[in-house]
Amino acid sequence: MKPTFSLRLKIFNLNCWGIPFLSKHRADRVKRLGDFLNMESFDLVLLEEVWSEQDFQYLRQKLLPTYPAAHYFRSGIIGSGLCVFSKHPIQEFTQHVFTLNGYPYMVHHGDWFCGKAVGLLVLHLSGLVLNAYVTHLHAEYSRQKDIYLAHRVAQAWELAQFIHHTSKKADVVLLCGDLNLHPKDLGCRLLKEWTGLHDAFLETRDFKGSEEGCTMVPENCYVNQRELEQFPVGIRIDYVLYKAVSGLYISCKTLKTTTGSDPHSGTPLSDHEALMATLCVRHSPPQHNPSPTHGPAERSPLINVLREAWTEVDQGLAQARWWATIAGYVIGLGLILLVLLCALAAGGGIKEIAILLWTPNVGLVLGAGAFYLFHMQEAKSLCRVRAELQHVLGRARETQDLSPESEQALLLGQQEGDRAEEQ
Amino acid sequence: MKPTFSLRLKIFNLNCWGIPFLSKHRADRVKRLGDFLNMESFDLVLLEEVWSEQDFQYLRQKLLPTYPAAHYFRSGIIGSGLCVFSKHPIQEFTQHVFTLNGYPYMVHHGDWFCGKAVGLLVLHLSGLVLNAYVTHLHAEYSRQKDIYLAHRVAQAWELAQFIHHTSKKADVVLLCGDLNLHPKDLGCRLLKEWTGLHDAFLETRDFKGSEEGCTMVPENCYVNQRELEQFPVGIRIDYVLYKAVSGLYISCKTLKTTTGSDPHSGTPLSDHEALMATLCVRHSPPQHNPSPTHGPAERSPLINVLREAWTEVDQGLAQARWWATIAGYVIGLGLILLVLLCALAAGGGIKEIAILLWTPNVGLVLGAGAFYLFHMQEAKSLCRVRAELQHVLGRARETQDLSPESEQALLLGQQEGDRAEEQ
Repeated sequence: MKPTFSLRLKIFNLNCWGIPFLSKHRADRVKRLGDFLNMESFDLVLLEEVWSEQDFQYLRQKLLPTYPAAHYFRSGIIGSGLCVFSKHPIQEFTQHVFTLNGYPYMVHHGDWFCGKAVGLLVLHLSGLVLNAYVTHLHAEYSRQKDIYLAHRVAQAWELAQFIHHTSKKADVVLLCGDLNLHPKDLGCRLLKEWTGLHDAFLETRDFKGSEEGCTMVPENCYVNQRELEQFPVGIRIDYVLYKAVSGLYISCKTLKTTTGSDPHSGTPLSDHEALMATLCVRHSPPQHNPSPTHGPAERSPLINVLREAWTEVDQGLAQARWWATIAGYVIGLGLILLVLLCALAAGGGIKEIAILLWTPNVGLVLGAGAFYLFHMQEAKSLCRVRAELQHVLGRARETQDLSPESEQALLLGQQEGDRAEEQ
Repeated sequence: MKPTFSLRLKIFNLNCWGIPFLSKHRADRVKRLGDFLNMESFDLVLLEEVWSEQDFQYLRQKLLPTYPAAHYFRSGIIGSGLCVFSKHPIQEFTQHVFTLNGYPYMVHHGDWFCGKAVGLLVLHLSGLVLNAYVTHLHAEYSRQKDIYLAHRVAQAWELAQFIHHTSKKADVVLLCGDLNLHPKDLGCRLLKEWTGLHDAFLETRDFKGSEEGCTMVPENCYVNQRELEQFPVGIRIDYVLYKAVSGLYISCKTLKTTTGSDPHSGTPLSDHEALMATLCVRHSPPQHNPSPTHGPAERSPLINVLREAWTEVDQGLAQARWWATIAGYVIGLGLILLVLLCALAAGGGIKEIAILLWTPNVGLVLGAGAFYLFHMQEAKSLCRVRAELQHVLGRARETQDLSPESEQALLLGQQEGDRAEEQ
């Protein structure tokens, strides 16, 4: 590779809000998105919430001349909603479906049925290996009382681990998607700290678009204004994150967002704003490396965020076990009732009522059984995430310079870890 | 690294048959396993079917002086049953839970409840990075009519992909576990072809143990003899597989199995036989590389096995869609019946019977709904595996030397691929 080597990447990311029957003007928006993508010619287009495979197939046909490579990531019952279009050949792809993704009985939220996932594409560009990831984490339905917080933190960790373990030989790592996390949220910090990914919005010197880089803004006519009541400017939950390794330097030359309307005319393309980034990869000047692997100076924020995540997951675990216990009691009660009803039906005076109540009672026991099993599985998965966090915390402790302050913090972490392992 | 560098690894693998309340002499066997492992001092111990976390904790305490590092892989409702003990520090670990793993309504088989998975450990030994994987695939309950075949092939593919994507920077890759696959089974060939892993039993010149390296033998008193009726010598379904990359050479110096009895005395340690391998890693002589990445000469078997897997997964997909359709009809029928029953209850003469039948009918509709959703999810997951296989098939086609014979085979493959993508 020549010292003057440089690679430019034009990236497009959008949560398309493509829910069949529910999202307004879906067909028209998908058509206009296709026109726009054809006109602009990005290197890589990463889309979320393309829930209908027909929409993907429509875009695929339409974009074929400009983006010969495409892939739709299938998972869960509805699908992950993730897809990609690429100007360059896709060498490899795979995906990881998050083991925790909400609750099946929260049907009105629907996330559980989607099979939220992270998709990976491997591309070879100018002799470099690019690992591009696209993802969509569990939605946040209430910021004040977020029952999915532990799941979202666990998803952020699984995402970070998937990137960490699959990108070890990549020269450039790119992550785009709707994280459903604000920039300072625990999951977002955990992801950035563990992977070393940089936020295009924070890094670029040339940003054009919505105020504070928000990707859900009140100006967008499709946005539920009540959801943004506490955020007059909007919220930033969609990201372009990147890093380069092995003596390469990556920077975000320009970053643009749409601002609540179609980039050319008409209504917006989605209820989210699109992100358009131009990244530049070149040889790193030896005196400064902008993507350090977590050296001693970086350890402290990593340790703090790991401990925070550990605590959150631990609380989620306690909650999951509580629900499993409640379900256990209901099963016990239901079984006692069943025996009583059988006795009444056999000889008592209220035979008919007993027979009538028998079937709903069986339903109750079965329902509680399913509920119990689900929360047992939830507990197992949270336990797994906690163990991984704890291990990384332990490793961080071993390698960092032990300042008195951090030593105390780590000791606390270790105690928590030991306690957890014993449980 | 010196040219005379060499690293010896002593590996132990066993499916422990540790089902609480069901497996015979469990406590005694776990105790004797602990004694044996302490006495022998392996570098790495990889165990499957340690279903009880108490058993793991017992072993952990017992083995602590000899194997200071340990990890239990939690997943699903019951757990993956996988755990490891290591003489060397574990740098990193993570796991991948298979997205397809049998059917929840096949309660008597139980695999679905386990959350079968692959666990990954990263170890740093003498400056080398060792990625060690431990796994346990879905059991084969009937070889003649195997309803889980598509799932097992999909699991083998997910396992191969997980190893492929997470081991790119590893110097040595090791996979141990109970694959529930005979050496010539499709899943086993797919795994070996795609990862380039070598089979210790086939590679070693110094083998001691059961005939043909079998890991379930009729001499073992815990083995269900009926299951081995067609295999008088036994079956080989547990493996030690390995490869080395980047100018290193790995070989299996010795391989031993137990032979249906305790290695020292008494009843066997499990219904499976233990595998004990001594691997040797050293500098590869430049003139021969025993672990080629799939070059042109290797393409043809890879392509054949990919096509075979594609066909199998495609058949599984058709089956999944068929079940989903049947469930759809049952839901429709159930809903019509519900309306009829409501009408009868409102005015008809058989009011009581109508009321009695109403609740089981609701149960039927709900049950069929769950069945429908499950098989929709199964179809999505199989579709995903098929798309990945198809893509790899396409890439293999592009890079291989196109002989007339293989060209025809590939054309067929491509046609299948195109057909699949259109569906």
